[in-house]
Amino acid sequence: MRLGICQMQVTEDKEKNVGTAVEMIVEAAERGARLIVLPEMFTCPYDVNLFSEYAEDENGYSIRTMRSIARELGIHLVAGSIPEETPEGIYNTSFVMDDGGNIIGKHRKVHLFDINVPGEISFRESDSLIAGDSVTVIETPQCVMGVGICYDMRFPELSRMMALGGAEVLIFPGAFNMTTGPAHWRLLVRSRALDNQCYCVAASPARNPSASYVAYGHSMIADPWGSVVCEADASPSVITADIDLEAVERIRRKLPLLRNRRPDVYGWRSGV
Amino acid sequence: MRLGICQMQVTEDKEKNVGTAVEMIVEAAERGARLIVLPEMFTCPYDVNLFSEYAEDENGYSIRTMRSIARELGIHLVAGSIPEETPEGIYNTSFVMDDGGNIIGKHRKVHLFDINVPGEISFRESDSLIAGDSVTVIETPQCVMGVGICYDMRFPELSRMMALGGAEVLIFPGAFNMTTGPAHWRLLVRSRALDNQCYCVAASPARNPSASYVAYGHSMIADPWGSVVCEADASPSVITADIDLEAVERIRRKLPLLRNRRPDVYGWRSGV
Repeated sequence: MRLGICQMQVTEDKEKNVGTAVEMIVEAAERGARLIVLPEMFTCPYDVNLFSEYAEDENGYSIRTMRSIARELGIHLVAGSIPEETPEGIYNTSFVMDDGGNIIGKHRKVHLFDINVPGEISFRESDSLIAGDSVTVIETPQCVMGVGICYDMRFPELSRMMALGGAEVLIFPGAFNMTTGPAHWRLLVRSRALDNQCYCVAASPARNPSASYVAYGHSMIADPWGSVVCEADASPSVITADIDLEAVERIRRKLPLLRNRRPDVYGWRSGV
Repeated sequence: MRLGICQMQVTEDKEKNVGTAVEMIVEAAERGARLIVLPEMFTCPYDVNLFSEYAEDENGYSIRTMRSIARELGIHLVAGSIPEETPEGIYNTSFVMDDGGNIIGKHRKVHLFDINVPGEISFRESDSLIAGDSVTVIETPQCVMGVGICYDMRFPELSRMMALGGAEVLIFPGAFNMTTGPAHWRLLVRSRALDNQCYCVAASPARNPSASYVAYGHSMIADPWGSVVCEADASPSVITADIDLEAVERIRRKLPLLRNRRPDVYGWRSGV
């Protein structure tokens, strides 16, 4: 099963962004991808002051367009994320469509990103977003996937819950920045893959040096042995890799990490 | 606070091994280390068929000698691990001594290492060892440390429990092999440090190509930002690094991962 990531440039123009996504989805499908992933906040700049202006629900323009293209091309789509408008507030939400254009799941970002590195980066998602409260595992005919968003990747608990829920592929639309990207992006993608013996897929926007939040880029896929199998640079590009689900089974059989766990010892739930 | 790792060559001669450990502990102390770490199974070859022959309890020669040298030099010592003889069977146990030579804690390896990569490596600890059932966090005047052993490092749950228990330094005597070492050792040390915003210390025996189990070496220390601050090669050596506990606090304040956890969402304890 071939997977594609669309590392697209995100601008301030929502319709243009949706158009770029469609073009890159077509390119990925032409290159054989049956499961295609977009980056976090692919419709709008990653700016807490703009999320409400760009917010839509699943009946809005962006998701309707994504459902159409998934149906038209017959591909499964993890539609990055958008600011999702709801009566209770705005979530950072990833909608997932099947090859008939049906929404088969969604993930609302569970861990909101609040960082303060003086002189380098300060960002508080919790000022304008509300957090989801579910682990998201979605079964398709091709694979079982877990979906998280960006900062969710930093919490080994969430990836573990996905793997224990059956996920063979962990998918993280994300947008690390120029401080955390070079330091941590690759390390996190590889370690979530290794610890859970899953593929791990991280989809970033392309780098736009003139944006208020500069994304690192470097979308990548790591295999269940923790090795990077493909990686973009910082510029707009579609990357693809073949996902070998037998490798997941083979590695889990040889080194049975998930079976060797000691939940009797961990006591996470009580965890401080 | 300076920390030292004694990456010693382990032979079939227990008394010689204990003597080598003492020499390298002296060297580390002379170089200013106040907390010194030995590798896994520092008294005996890493061979499931030999553990019972080399097993001792805390009153045996090896641990008595380690208590003496800790007291004599006024250092804290994580005495790698030994096969620990008990009425119920043999554990893979790390004894920890304070600068008065008192045993202030011990960790019994929780996750036993059973691997089968045909043609490369096959090893079943559970044939000859029994598993511990506790998370080990030990407070000293210098720092709060978590102690695990080798395969324990592969399970993010255990490191997280240590961090939630207050650990600022995670210490893993370990002996990865020539398959898993090059592929995973560095990735695991860095990711346990990064995820938990702790120092992570991994102490391997030196590589002995003529042993039945060839250790990877490459003892290393990663800092709470996930960067490697010192690393040995494969040969016998003492490495040291200064542990900056203010860096732990500073990084946790800037990027509050432990506070941003969502235990309400994880449900680990029930976890499949």
